[in-house]
Amino acid sequence: MGASRARRLSVLDASFLGMETRDTPMHVGALQIFSLPKNAAPGFVKSVVQRYRAPKAIGRPWNLKLAPVPLGRLLPAMHEADEIDFHYHVRHSALPGPGGERELGELISHLHSQPLDRTRPLWTCHVIEGLHDRQFAIYIKIHHALSDGVKGARMIAASLRDKPGTSLAPPWESQAPAARRGKPSAAPRAPASLRWLTTLPGAFRPLFLRTPDAPVVLRPFEAPNSALLNGRVTGARRIATQQLDLAQIRRIAKRAGASINDVFLAVCSAALRRHLLASDALPAASLTAGVPMSLRADGDDASGNAVGFIWASLATDIEDPRQRLAAIRASIGAWKQHLQSLDAAARLPFATLTFTPAVAVMVSGLGARLRPPMNVIISNVPGPEHPLYLGGARLDAMYPVSIPVQGLALNITGVSYAGKLNVGFTGSRDRLPHLQRLAVYAGEALAELDALL
Amino acid sequence: MGASRARRLSVLDASFLGMETRDTPMHVGALQIFSLPKNAAPGFVKSVVQRYRAPKAIGRPWNLKLAPVPLGRLLPAMHEADEIDFHYHVRHSALPGPGGERELGELISHLHSQPLDRTRPLWTCHVIEGLHDRQFAIYIKIHHALSDGVKGARMIAASLRDKPGTSLAPPWESQAPAARRGKPSAAPRAPASLRWLTTLPGAFRPLFLRTPDAPVVLRPFEAPNSALLNGRVTGARRIATQQLDLAQIRRIAKRAGASINDVFLAVCSAALRRHLLASDALPAASLTAGVPMSLRADGDDASGNAVGFIWASLATDIEDPRQRLAAIRASIGAWKQHLQSLDAAARLPFATLTFTPAVAVMVSGLGARLRPPMNVIISNVPGPEHPLYLGGARLDAMYPVSIPVQGLALNITGVSYAGKLNVGFTGSRDRLPHLQRLAVYAGEALAELDALL
Repeated sequence: MGASRARRLSVLDASFLGMETRDTPMHVGALQIFSLPKNAAPGFVKSVVQRYRAPKAIGRPWNLKLAPVPLGRLLPAMHEADEIDFHYHVRHSALPGPGGERELGELISHLHSQPLDRTRPLWTCHVIEGLHDRQFAIYIKIHHALSDGVKGARMIAASLRDKPGTSLAPPWESQAPAARRGKPSAAPRAPASLRWLTTLPGAFRPLFLRTPDAPVVLRPFEAPNSALLNGRVTGARRIATQQLDLAQIRRIAKRAGASINDVFLAVCSAALRRHLLASDALPAASLTAGVPMSLRADGDDASGNAVGFIWASLATDIEDPRQRLAAIRASIGAWKQHLQSLDAAARLPFATLTFTPAVAVMVSGLGARLRPPMNVIISNVPGPEHPLYLGGARLDAMYPVSIPVQGLALNITGVSYAGKLNVGFTGSRDRLPHLQRLAVYAGEALAELDALL
Repeated sequence: MGASRARRLSVLDASFLGMETRDTPMHVGALQIFSLPKNAAPGFVKSVVQRYRAPKAIGRPWNLKLAPVPLGRLLPAMHEADEIDFHYHVRHSALPGPGGERELGELISHLHSQPLDRTRPLWTCHVIEGLHDRQFAIYIKIHHALSDGVKGARMIAASLRDKPGTSLAPPWESQAPAARRGKPSAAPRAPASLRWLTTLPGAFRPLFLRTPDAPVVLRPFEAPNSALLNGRVTGARRIATQQLDLAQIRRIAKRAGASINDVFLAVCSAALRRHLLASDALPAASLTAGVPMSLRADGDDASGNAVGFIWASLATDIEDPRQRLAAIRASIGAWKQHLQSLDAAARLPFATLTFTPAVAVMVSGLGARLRPPMNVIISNVPGPEHPLYLGGARLDAMYPVSIPVQGLALNITGVSYAGKLNVGFTGSRDRLPHLQRLAVYAGEALAELDALL
């Protein structure tokens, strides 16, 4: 194993390894649902398994495994594995009858609960047969130290084709030399000028000084306690999925003068509100959501993790769905307006400074004991706009599966794809025994908004 | 959670928890294969799942979970769980087509690699459909701190019936009050007399002083190094199974003047020898096996872990199968003869004293770095003699799945049942990539012995 091929991890990536516990495995997943091609041979799924086990090349980060850490060195390093046991990483699985959403949800819940083997490249893939309606599924799990969910979804999409064809190339296949496809370093680049530093005190002012006429900028750690959403989590996961119609979301957004993301947050808010009310556990104050958003300037592809959080009120203290949507829109708007008022160079440092304490609490495991930084994380990630294919099989949906941590038992992430918003709910099994209902409620909340607006 | 219901673990049971690592999970498993009843309804397997998830009562050890350990207390304790999420513990799984031995072996290998969740009672059960030949399977995994494989197999057998019927009661169902069905304490009982102590020095003499005319009593740690069998293990497992005919084994044993166990060891020896020869890795000196045996006096049911090891030569340095069987028989005979020459009260302490260093090496994780105490562990456990049934489904086979540890990458265990010896091979995935061949070779070795003798 050449030392030249070892790569030190960034502090952020390393933290996903260092803070990982039995109760909070730090991997993300993607669940893809495909329709079998018309007249597919009976062995079609098997042929996907075989092709996935025999890539013609292997690209980063799929070939990276943990290197032994020399004493005295703080951060773990990764190196390229000499040999990869693809028969281990790629598994052929099956659902019991009737092969519906319930059976698929149970299998993915169990698969997502299992920690990755640290002696191998930190990913696995399950190709799953036995779904009803002539479908099959592929679930891919990768450690957050190797890839976040957004990048993972992109790598998967890049392995698919725009048209039905014969290519069954897996996401880890790469024709380019592996060493040249490294993940960009997450080390912060030195900014060209430090003038933005002088603007920072002003940037924080609205968080602490509130004036009656200015819109309220929600502070981190301003979330009410919710045992269901913010209690201690254990290692087992429960997942649920919902597919929302993007045209319907757009129609509602247009009528309400809101963004697609506002409507998505309102749908999640309605589902959470209904679920907590039914459990007699809705806090009097509104739930708050941490909403990750890209702070990358247009055309800047090099800066690594340029992701900040917007702190949004979910307005769960408001009964009327229309007023709730308006309040969510106003809360997001106040943050956006504030960010836009800042020097462009100050936006990322500002977002990082509000975001860092929340991340510190989450990855330290203290989350279940401290006041939560937010009640839930809700992401909305743009994905491919046009249908994609694996060989002749059409991709019907791609659901993100994410990471609950101590103090944040639920993650809701939506990925858009070919006219749909595919929403994955990932929860701690013990905290959220009826997670499936959230998915059902979200679908009903969208229909309700459509009827009201 | 009543403190009165907490139970301190014995040092031995606690060691299985304390020494557990990502690379060496400490659970045992049992794989049962059933034939579907004639004219079984299509939902038969589903009805087993449902019944297994709804026991009418729950007995020890199935309801025990780890209690938080107060600071300053050395040993972990178990207490009875107030609520058990049977939907978590009992899973409905399926094999991909064609549902043969290969697909079943791959699934069980992966299931046996996954550590148990320490926040719940330390067991899981998978009811598996999709086997060919109208069969289904049940795989049960339990932590060694709750049960060893022998006791686990007995609990499973006790839940089955002698005749086809309608009872689908799971092994964890118990009508008796749970608290009264505790595992007997493993704390050693004070012996009535200490006279046996004076015999111990004599008991050890043959291990160190060898005389030309006396049979050689094999010493612990007298095993040659074998990277394949005694190298470092990682967390992934590989399992293989073989069903041997007991009548055939008995016939061979009778002709050779050997015991059933001698023939079983000879079969394992032949398989190992052939496999290591093919890999050009057969040590010049014979491999040795640790063979667990009960040291319980007849009628003594109370003494807990009265298990010692016999240290047997596998005579892998001998080419002729008949001479190999004779050498194995002589090696076992020398130990047995020596044990029988001891005061009955000294047998268990003696066996414990030779066995303890081996256990210490194994559970400490030092096994991969020190000279191995033995090359392989081979157990032969008597099981039910007559066919058993789950409802109308006949149990066709029950295979043990065991624990590789650092320095001992392979375990071979046979359990007799209804005229067959069901042999489970459990190996470290990375050390033994062709484990399946061992199972095939074992079947062929039995046929060869039958033809020669």
